[in-house]
Amino acid sequence: MDRFDTISFLSDYGTVDEFVGVVKSVIRQLAPRVSVIDVTHEVSPHDVRGASFTLARAAQYLAPGVVLAVVDPGVGTDRRAVAVEVGDGASILVGPDNGLLAPAVAMVGGATRAVELTNPDYQLGAPGPTFAGRDVFAPAAAHLCNGVPLTDLGPEIDTITLRPATMPLTRGEDGALVTEVLWTDRFGNLQLNVDPDEVAAYGDRVRLRFGSQTRTGVRHRTYAEIGPGEIGLVVDSYGLLSIAVDQQSAADELRLGTGDEVLLAPIEDDEPAATGAASGSTTPVTLGRRTP
Amino acid sequence: MDRFDTISFLSDYGTVDEFVGVVKSVIRQLAPRVSVIDVTHEVSPHDVRGASFTLARAAQYLAPGVVLAVVDPGVGTDRRAVAVEVGDGASILVGPDNGLLAPAVAMVGGATRAVELTNPDYQLGAPGPTFAGRDVFAPAAAHLCNGVPLTDLGPEIDTITLRPATMPLTRGEDGALVTEVLWTDRFGNLQLNVDPDEVAAYGDRVRLRFGSQTRTGVRHRTYAEIGPGEIGLVVDSYGLLSIAVDQQSAADELRLGTGDEVLLAPIEDDEPAATGAASGSTTPVTLGRRTP
Amino acid sequence: MDRFDTISFLSDYGTVDEFVGVVKSVIRQLAPRVSVIDVTHEVSPHDVRGASFTLARAAQYLAPGVVLAVVDPGVGTDRRAVAVEVGDGASILVGPDNGLLAPAVAMVGGATRAVELTNPDYQLGAPGPTFAGRDVFAPAAAHLCNGVPLTDLGPEIDTITLRPATMPLTRGEDGALVTEVLWTDRFGNLQLNVDPDEVAAYGDRVRLRFGSQTRTGVRHRTYAEIGPGEIGLVVDSYGLLSIAVDQQSAADELRLGTGDEVLLAPIEDDEPAATGAASGSTTPVTLGRRTP
Repeated sequence: MDRFDTISFLSDYGTVDEFVGVVKSVIRQLAPRVSVIDVTHEVSPHDVRGASFTLARAAQYLAPGVVLAVVDPGVGTDRRAVAVEVGDGASILVGPDNGLLAPAVAMVGGATRAVELTNPDYQLGAPGPTFAGRDVFAPAAAHLCNGVPLTDLGPEIDTITLRPATMPLTRGEDGALVTEVLWTDRFGNLQLNVDPDEVAAYGDRVRLRFGSQTRTGVRHRTYAEIGPGEIGLVVDSYGLLSIAVDQQSAADELRLGTGDEVLLAPIEDDEPAATGAASGSTTPVTLGRRTP
Repeated sequence: MDRFDTISFLSDYGTVDEFVGVVKSVIRQLAPRVSVIDVTHEVSPHDVRGASFTLARAAQYLAPGVVLAVVDPGVGTDRRAVAVEVGDGASILVGPDNGLLAPAVAMVGGATRAVELTNPDYQLGAPGPTFAGRDVFAPAAAHLCNGVPLTDLGPEIDTITLRPATMPLTRGEDGALVTEVLWTDRFGNLQLNVDPDEVAAYGDRVRLRFGSQTRTGVRHRTYAEIGPGEIGLVVDSYGLLSIAVDQQSAADELRLGTGDEVLLAPIEDDEPAATGAASGSTTPVTLGRRTP
Repeated sequence: MDRFDTISFLSDYGTVDEFVGVVKSVIRQLAPRVSVIDVTHEVSPHDVRGASFTLARAAQYLAPGVVLAVVDPGVGTDRRAVAVEVGDGASILVGPDNGLLAPAVAMVGGATRAVELTNPDYQLGAPGPTFAGRDVFAPAAAHLCNGVPLTDLGPEIDTITLRPATMPLTRGEDGALVTEVLWTDRFGNLQLNVDPDEVAAYGDRVRLRFGSQTRTGVRHRTYAEIGPGEIGLVVDSYGLLSIAVDQQSAADELRLGTGDEVLLAPIEDDEPAATGAASGSTTPVTLGRRTP
């Protein structure tokens, strides 16, 4: 009896090579009625951390079933291949135990069971151990959809031994909030690891400091409300604060990207405003007081 | 009772982020039996006009059902979210009312009904209004496939109030035809807004002027018939005249792109031919008479 | 009666334009129950040879059914459009007869029958002959899935007249093995046309010569076992020898790419080792003896 009919698939395989097509072909033959939904395959090669955030953002929207996630620089070594059950069996995440799955697992309530994928009966034979997506993870995902019990795939492991996520936390420092860009999206919007409540007391205008620049961000409800030359602070579609500019890429305009640090601070009443996205400027002028 | 089983999906979401996967996951959960066919998601960010042409080219080939199109720089503002019925219910186009849908709607015979997507019962709750593809348009598309009546999604609006298309027309000027590059395809072929009948009287050789260059285009039936160094004029797969060169990108060779103006004119009998794609030339020589 | 329910689809159409979506829409309407699995659409434009290798690598993993492959610089000319049956009807490959299908056909045991796709009853009418994927190949693939007999699509042709593959062979030269890079994958790993048995006698350390460089490659079982600065030789997921470096792109590090020649030779006992990937070096030092 079929147990799941959807596999959500994320990888760093790209779409130029045949990797994704081969994985789907393996699934098609083992579990013909299953639909595969691509989350993305264009994670930067080997970027486990970025991929783990992508998967966590998507997690609450994915169809119940199997989540197949493969960003696996340690393929073929002793890193474990795992299947992690969440929601008491509502869904199962399949992938390497390298932190990739952890934020998504946490986002949906934590692991209820996990196994290591060691049973060769549910793997493909292969010339070498370098394509676990095809030979180990895809067959596991397909067999789980077909109703093969989790514990048939390998020995159960203590979920506490699963490699944890490393979500960056904000911290207060000299009256400012030290934050990090979690994600630069296709439109150049910069998602911060900031719940809007954390800066609610700052009001509608917020001091931003990053690199050698000091700017003013203005809270808006939508990207389209950001004025020309203005830096907007918008609660994004995942509920986190994001930096955006008008119809352009904030990442390009501000030369900011994933992993960069941004300080948020209240603006003093007697302080001149530092506005302007300084479009195309190569020598941005730093206004305002220096960080104490 | 299911009404449609196919959603054709176009956006500017790209495939690096999880946007497309999330939209499909929303659809999968609301309407599990529906297949989603990707038209493209790599429209340039916010390029409503280019996307509207892409959708119009595809329109006549799409499977009857729902067309979900999201290029939406005004997301969250007062631009309307709409569902536009065509062919008396044969298909329904869902997207922002910003001109994106208009050329496709016109191509398939015009709108027969339209509603504004305002009914929150058919939308997802969300932290903010910035991801309407996920929260408004995908649920609407899925519910329409499930047989929810169009008018349950929101109040009917007069189709005449829908934002119209802005298709560029050719015009005559001093004996030449002023045309525009509508589309640069992956192979670098340049589609013009020119019905071949408009230049039939020019014969097999046509004067081309663009930028400071004057060249001769030669009519051919296929791209492969274009000779080395020659500029070909081929009726493309949509029935419009296109500029192409031999096994290379005409866009790169001629430094022409979408939105550029090209003048087409007959070649006088006593006029020397200006041939050659001038591969790699950095100082193209301008031959022929100057435009008056 | 349906004969096949899967079409595996490879092309050089890219995913920016609507080509792939239109082809799938044509299939969807002719054969609604068929699933299309994308092998890749990002083959370099017109790169028949590279695409033929991609298809051959994927071939043994594809679901039985129809393989639709379109890289077709000669579209509209007298190159033949063909359907090639393999495995006595287990699968049928559909595409241009320009060598694209040949390595895959050979990989799965050779052609058992073939026809030329000339029957207009199984093609779409079109403004011009430039989009055979949409007008000729997709309808053929769909009709074959629906159970239309192969020979209804056009006259049978002698399989010996099909354009053959041109797989590069290794050759011995002055005690070295002259090899070629067949494929540079997304991770920058360089697949050679070398069966590991060919170099088994060389032992774990192998002299590599390419361009003006001489290096030492070290055999490893997985990419992750390659040490910092080391050049690894790993049997890849298709059973061929590949060149890789630690967590980086070997293609970038070594400035090697598809089609480049690499000489493999045993290392003499009294010879100093030439190690090191020389990360980022602009003037790599050539060690070891010169090629005789």
